[in-house]
Amino acid sequence: MNDNTSQLHSAASSLERIFPDLSIEPLRQQDMDTAQVHLDNLTKPKGSLGRLEDLARRLYAMREGQLPLRVSPALMLTVAGDHGVAAQGVSPFPQAVTRQMVQNFFEGGAAINVLCRSTGMDLRVVDAGCAGGPFEAHPILLECRLGDGTADMTFGPAMSVETCLKGLRAGVKLAHDAADKGYQCLGVGEMGIANSTAGTALYCALLDLDPDVMAGPGAGSDQAMVRHKAQIVRRALAANEGAVRSGDAVEILAALGGHEIAVMSGIMLGAASRRLPVLVDGFICSAAYVAALRICPVLADYAVLSHASAELGHGRALARLQQATPEQRPLLHLDMRLGEGTGGAVAYGLLRCAADIYNDMATFGAAGVAEQTC
Amino acid sequence: MNDNTSQLHSAASSLERIFPDLSIEPLRQQDMDTAQVHLDNLTKPKGSLGRLEDLARRLYAMREGQLPLRVSPALMLTVAGDHGVAAQGVSPFPQAVTRQMVQNFFEGGAAINVLCRSTGMDLRVVDAGCAGGPFEAHPILLECRLGDGTADMTFGPAMSVETCLKGLRAGVKLAHDAADKGYQCLGVGEMGIANSTAGTALYCALLDLDPDVMAGPGAGSDQAMVRHKAQIVRRALAANEGAVRSGDAVEILAALGGHEIAVMSGIMLGAASRRLPVLVDGFICSAAYVAALRICPVLADYAVLSHASAELGHGRALARLQQATPEQRPLLHLDMRLGEGTGGAVAYGLLRCAADIYNDMATFGAAGVAEQTC
Repeated sequence: MNDNTSQLHSAASSLERIFPDLSIEPLRQQDMDTAQVHLDNLTKPKGSLGRLEDLARRLYAMREGQLPLRVSPALMLTVAGDHGVAAQGVSPFPQAVTRQMVQNFFEGGAAINVLCRSTGMDLRVVDAGCAGGPFEAHPILLECRLGDGTADMTFGPAMSVETCLKGLRAGVKLAHDAADKGYQCLGVGEMGIANSTAGTALYCALLDLDPDVMAGPGAGSDQAMVRHKAQIVRRALAANEGAVRSGDAVEILAALGGHEIAVMSGIMLGAASRRLPVLVDGFICSAAYVAALRICPVLADYAVLSHASAELGHGRALARLQQATPEQRPLLHLDMRLGEGTGGAVAYGLLRCAADIYNDMATFGAAGVAEQTC
Repeated sequence: MNDNTSQLHSAASSLERIFPDLSIEPLRQQDMDTAQVHLDNLTKPKGSLGRLEDLARRLYAMREGQLPLRVSPALMLTVAGDHGVAAQGVSPFPQAVTRQMVQNFFEGGAAINVLCRSTGMDLRVVDAGCAGGPFEAHPILLECRLGDGTADMTFGPAMSVETCLKGLRAGVKLAHDAADKGYQCLGVGEMGIANSTAGTALYCALLDLDPDVMAGPGAGSDQAMVRHKAQIVRRALAANEGAVRSGDAVEILAALGGHEIAVMSGIMLGAASRRLPVLVDGFICSAAYVAALRICPVLADYAVLSHASAELGHGRALARLQQATPEQRPLLHLDMRLGEGTGGAVAYGLLRCAADIYNDMATFGAAGVAEQTC
């Protein structure tokens, strides 16, 4: 599936170099074809379930034909971290909100709690580096703190390459632990005040896009703040010129990313290495995805781009990405721009529909329904 | 909400004339505003849940503020009927498939069975006029047969105006019975070989669109068959010139519709008269919606256009409709074109998400989360 994605690949931080013991196998066209034969034999006009059939075909290939297709139980991992660049006044919310929202996750009152309950996902909150020190233990908290917030990327790298690699490894481990517990599908989301600024910087560096084009309102900035944000991103790109020029995914992720973003990239790679579908959320999550894709383009086979964010830069980045991976289009277009994994949680309902269709529909023969005659 | 829709309104067959005891009340802007105040106070950036917030606002207004918002239990009514025009060779499937698929619904093996189970809707199958006589009783069968298939509309009206009115009334009663049983949301779907030809003819007559532009592959016609279908529609429009010229919704529905289509229009009007949200499916279902909208434009307030069909004419018809009701955009874009109510069943998951968000998210105050500071 990924013949066209090699241009995104950077040898320096290839999967083999970073994780010698990890491999991500491309889906086999043969499995996709086998799945399509079954789908074409179900009591419906051929192809008439559209993108649900695409999903079912991919799920079949991810499982190498093991039936029934299963996407349940499913786990949403919402990863939180703080950003030094918040000091530059790039968000309309104070930095304390990252921590307050994590507490809100604990208490079950945030959008991601509600949507996971609605569509049937379990939720765990990962503290990857919230400012203010560790949280007290909580049943849904997973801790892998890389620091107490990142450094301000307008003065240099947000974190060291070592810290970034630690985050990637932590993410892989989170995914593997989930797989070991029997989860059949993972979702990835984030919380971090100012992280749309980090996401914007990552897109600009990884996909050669312009800050003025990519900066958007994020959590609700006005026009003046968006202009300011673009300037801040430009400054961050200049302050990390070496990393940007290297084109190396891990160097760029360290320089311009965030603790939660590095962990998210790792979760995606870890999910794919266990052949699990992974739901990618919106603007910031997709930046983590682009970085992970640079490390291992085959990840695309396992990623489900859940929705097109209302943040305009998201569509611009995905359009750039589609030049490399034309199949990767977001499933939902609901003008959402919340983050936390909310788009992934909503899209999870579609994955369930896709698996159920494949598993439970009758064939023409079994149902005694006549097939197309001309 | 419906100031712009009056151009769709046809006085001759207005709701008051056909159903003097039925009324559909427009949603109140005041309720929508009240709902938005609550949504803006939930722990998320304002408006960041996009179309889920739109749905929640409308649900609140449909219920006139009665909380919690409820869309469960929900009922999908898949209405089946046969079409005389099938004799003109407009479908790649033989007419017997309508009946065979109804049996498949009974046995639980069709896409609509599976998707209703996936997203949590109950399913009832309505026989509005399948060829071959009544079915034996079945727990999910509701019978309201208007005939043994319609007449061939290329020779004159598919059914009489009296039969059409009977179908509309039966549909209203089905919706009212469901409301009386406590259903909080209805979905409408269809099964009927050749009914995409009827749907095409309805769009052409009701929205002044051209058969060559509107005819599409339906269940899988090839190009030659699509051209033939357009010719057949043109012939049907000519054979029913009086009805088409009248602009009267019921006359057009009788001349060019189908038994299942008339019943579907009735269900939509009945749902709206009980202030219930009603999920409109794809190409054929939306033709029933357009006819019902002509009878009562306020229906738009209660209709949820679930998805944009892969059948290109669907988008063309909705675009024409949007000139009158700009808010009415389909929720999902999944390249589906199956019918049966499948798009509605998938979209039902989004309605549940919308209600849950409204009911269950914490407010900034209750969660101790700081609001936007600038």
